[in-house]
Amino acid sequence: MPNLNETISRIEKIDYSLIEKTQERLNNLTKPQASLGRLEELAKQIVGITKNENPLVRNKVIFTMAADHGVTEEGVSAYPKEVTPQMVYNFIRGGAGINVLARHVGARVVIVDMGVACDLEPHSDLVIKKVNYGTKNMVKGPAMSREEAVKSLENGIEIFEKEFVNGIDIAGTGDMGIGNTTPSSAITSVITGESVEEVTGRGTGIDDETLTNKIVVIKKAIRVNKPNAKDAIDVLSKVGGFEIGGLAGVILAAVSRRIPVVIDGFISGAAALIAYQLEPKVKDYMIAAHCSVERGHKAILGYIGLRPLLDLDLRLGEGTGAALGMSIIEASVKILTEMATFQSASVSEKADKQRKPVKP
Amino acid sequence: MPNLNETISRIEKIDYSLIEKTQERLNNLTKPQASLGRLEELAKQIVGITKNENPLVRNKVIFTMAADHGVTEEGVSAYPKEVTPQMVYNFIRGGAGINVLARHVGARVVIVDMGVACDLEPHSDLVIKKVNYGTKNMVKGPAMSREEAVKSLENGIEIFEKEFVNGIDIAGTGDMGIGNTTPSSAITSVITGESVEEVTGRGTGIDDETLTNKIVVIKKAIRVNKPNAKDAIDVLSKVGGFEIGGLAGVILAAVSRRIPVVIDGFISGAAALIAYQLEPKVKDYMIAAHCSVERGHKAILGYIGLRPLLDLDLRLGEGTGAALGMSIIEASVKILTEMATFQSASVSEKADKQRKPVKP
Repeated sequence: MPNLNETISRIEKIDYSLIEKTQERLNNLTKPQASLGRLEELAKQIVGITKNENPLVRNKVIFTMAADHGVTEEGVSAYPKEVTPQMVYNFIRGGAGINVLARHVGARVVIVDMGVACDLEPHSDLVIKKVNYGTKNMVKGPAMSREEAVKSLENGIEIFEKEFVNGIDIAGTGDMGIGNTTPSSAITSVITGESVEEVTGRGTGIDDETLTNKIVVIKKAIRVNKPNAKDAIDVLSKVGGFEIGGLAGVILAAVSRRIPVVIDGFISGAAALIAYQLEPKVKDYMIAAHCSVERGHKAILGYIGLRPLLDLDLRLGEGTGAALGMSIIEASVKILTEMATFQSASVSEKADKQRKPVKP
Repeated sequence: MPNLNETISRIEKIDYSLIEKTQERLNNLTKPQASLGRLEELAKQIVGITKNENPLVRNKVIFTMAADHGVTEEGVSAYPKEVTPQMVYNFIRGGAGINVLARHVGARVVIVDMGVACDLEPHSDLVIKKVNYGTKNMVKGPAMSREEAVKSLENGIEIFEKEFVNGIDIAGTGDMGIGNTTPSSAITSVITGESVEEVTGRGTGIDDETLTNKIVVIKKAIRVNKPNAKDAIDVLSKVGGFEIGGLAGVILAAVSRRIPVVIDGFISGAAALIAYQLEPKVKDYMIAAHCSVERGHKAILGYIGLRPLLDLDLRLGEGTGAALGMSIIEASVKILTEMATFQSASVSEKADKQRKPVKP
């Protein structure tokens, strides 16, 4: 299994020359040039990522990673932390939002315990890669040790690599963890340089008072721990979470294998920030599925430079937005590989070259 | 077969009480309230439209209607009008953008000749409902007679009713017709009151000079014909098109049957404007799939009050945006009907009611 440094060192640029070549091919399909807009951009991106001129987006895998957060002691969430394991069991049973949307788009969900605070019942559909029983309360010191931060990244790499053997055309990220918008806001503020107020939202739906407290808590955590914005592993260890580290590991591993990664919402975005700080080349491999209602997400998208595909006011996480995004990406690739050309369909091109209709 | 007036008279309001009831049900699913944003709104809308608390969005049908436009004599398009029949044959062969995307989302495409300027070869997959061999050049007089306008609407109704017998859970609109952004801009300007400049774009990709001419042509057509903005049939006959009338008929018929209708881009939007002017209640049955690059589309969405689902810079038409939109609507309904409740999954609710995790 490649470790963190090996994985990062394998990451290459996407293939820009193939992207240009693909544009020519798209221009020859039976439609006005560029009239399928971002679908054409996506198709080119997938070709550039995979170095495959006829890519398939069939094996779709969403990594939904769960963990707990010591900072919930500070009353930052509307839900009790028991919900984290309860929702993991709900994922296994197939009753959660991500299960419904993954089935809808034909994606597989890999459910991972990255650090739930209790022991979960083993199950064939649950990958147990617990780094620890939840993070520590980050207002009192680092959320985790540096070793645990590296371990969470490497667990993510290991999980991806194991699934890669079974075949993955596209990966998606998803999260579950009561309290996890709090570390995500902290990471976002530290890395993007935006104020805590600017990147902290209502998570599962907290009231004004709890939001004010949440901002105070995040500011204190940053003050106490002094994360070094230039050192993503330091940021992850001081104010992060195990699922966030795990997802950053999945992103790095996918990119090292030239697999496109669909980033879900805010927590996945915080993981994307960590991965991007570790290796900026990951940017071209990532596709932002949607723009979350959680306000810090905009700062993440702006910092990395990603334009989301969907604007559906989602804020559930779990990979729900990634599932819907994957289907649009799959559609884009089918445009490239399944549409007729002007020649094959005997359709006249712009202005000059006229053709006689050939009946079907 | 119900005629136009019978169809319009059958149209009822959607069921607002069922929408409220559905909100309660959505609030009890295992997710923070409203965290699936517009997916929840869509699910409620489909319940309100269909009066079915457990609706299915399985039988998805896109009506892609083709016709020619006499105004192409004025040099308003980048493509020769031979492309209209060539593309109809491409639809039949399955090589066009709409075929690819409809297959992707599991939708059926009903291809209709509403007024292509030549005789098309009969084919089992082609519905021939030609009102005439293209419209007349609208700068010289009305594009069609008032009788032809009514006939185009009633042909649309007839086509929908015929397909309705086979089962339709959701309908989508699509168009093909070289030159048809010109009548669509004219309709949009007349009905919304926006200036011609504000609602006229580059269609298939015309240059600056052709765009300037297109604006002059549309202004002249409006000046010559003086369409009465209060009389949608007058507008359709003076500056419309047969596919636009046909699609407006499809919308009215679908709404009269309580079937949700997904509106594609700009030309479909012009059809939606006609249907909306004839019966404003259609608004609540329509879902705008996307926001087209064609600038007049924004004016249409604003006038009716529709918020598009997707922003993918599409401008192809054919129903391509509608196909992708349908899949999101189908997903929204599955959220409602397939997700577990807090009770069934033993997940604790906000703050108080805590539960013991029940293992899967």
